[in-house]
Amino acid sequence: MDLKKIIRDIPDFPSKGIIFRDITPVLQNPESLCYAIDEMMEPFKELDFDLVIGPESRGFIFGVPIAAAMKKGFIPVRKTGKLPYEVASKSYELEYGTATIEIHKDAIKEGQKIVIVDDLLATGGTCEAICGLVEDCGGEIVCLSFLIELLRFDGRKKFAGLPVHSLLKY
Amino acid sequence: MDLKKIIRDIPDFPSKGIIFRDITPVLQNPESLCYAIDEMMEPFKELDFDLVIGPESRGFIFGVPIAAAMKKGFIPVRKTGKLPYEVASKSYELEYGTATIEIHKDAIKEGQKIVIVDDLLATGGTCEAICGLVEDCGGEIVCLSFLIELLRFDGRKKFAGLPVHSLLKY
Repeated sequence: MDLKKIIRDIPDFPSKGIIFRDITPVLQNPESLCYAIDEMMEPFKELDFDLVIGPESRGFIFGVPIAAAMKKGFIPVRKTGKLPYEVASKSYELEYGTATIEIHKDAIKEGQKIVIVDDLLATGGTCEAICGLVEDCGGEIVCLSFLIELLRFDGRKKFAGLPVHSLLKY
Repeated sequence: MDLKKIIRDIPDFPSKGIIFRDITPVLQNPESLCYAIDEMMEPFKELDFDLVIGPESRGFIFGVPIAAAMKKGFIPVRKTGKLPYEVASKSYELEYGTATIEIHKDAIKEGQKIVIVDDLLATGGTCEAICGLVEDCGGEIVCLSFLIELLRFDGRKKFAGLPVHSLLKY
């Protein structure tokens, strides 16, 4: 299935000169939704791991169905102030300003192996911060899987030594 | 499985006097995650419908795995300014101020039957706005399913005539 034919290219969103890859048509169609989930979890099938982690909010879209299908738990990464229990926080730089993400401190047990799922790999800033959070909590990232990779940002260089999978490259 | 024993009650979050029902331990445990998804989709099994709709961001957590398991499409409802294509918008009142949610106008075809999935039914304000959005786009809400219902808000009265299911009542 050629998902690039289903993804909608939107010029000049969110700002001039950017082509936004709109995945909502992939979600809307049951065949493409199931195909994307199946293909994104393919790299995990032979892997020994404990948990899936994904960032708010589009990381939840593929992260939870993959966790459920593989009988693993899911850890939501949230923006600051959303999680009610004790949190581990990490800030990282954006093009303008900084962002802070959080997970619950007790989400990870010492030595657990964790995979990251998200819809998009661009600069990799969010996922680099997730790696740091997981490490701070005693866990270990063992693999990353994305629906889309924007090659011009070379985000995967932030994850040297780790397997980084993406279904669609632009 | 008694999910109330797994949900973590956090007093005084997000503000004094509120007991927050923290679902992250349910997500973290593969058995409870799969159980919650299975039970939340139980009401849909004998139902004729086309699409699952869920609001950002926690509606994605259960909405997408239910859509995928039932071979239906998923429509993400997003906060204003996040969706890149032509949108239908609806504003609704919060305790302080208003919120605006959006869906893509072409997410729904005339006459499609749609179920709402979210983690929590409190006042029902968000889901009432979703019903309005779906109607504006020519679709029809036929059922709602929640993990948790906070009975004191009596949110289900906003959906008179529709089946409203919740797994856990507080």
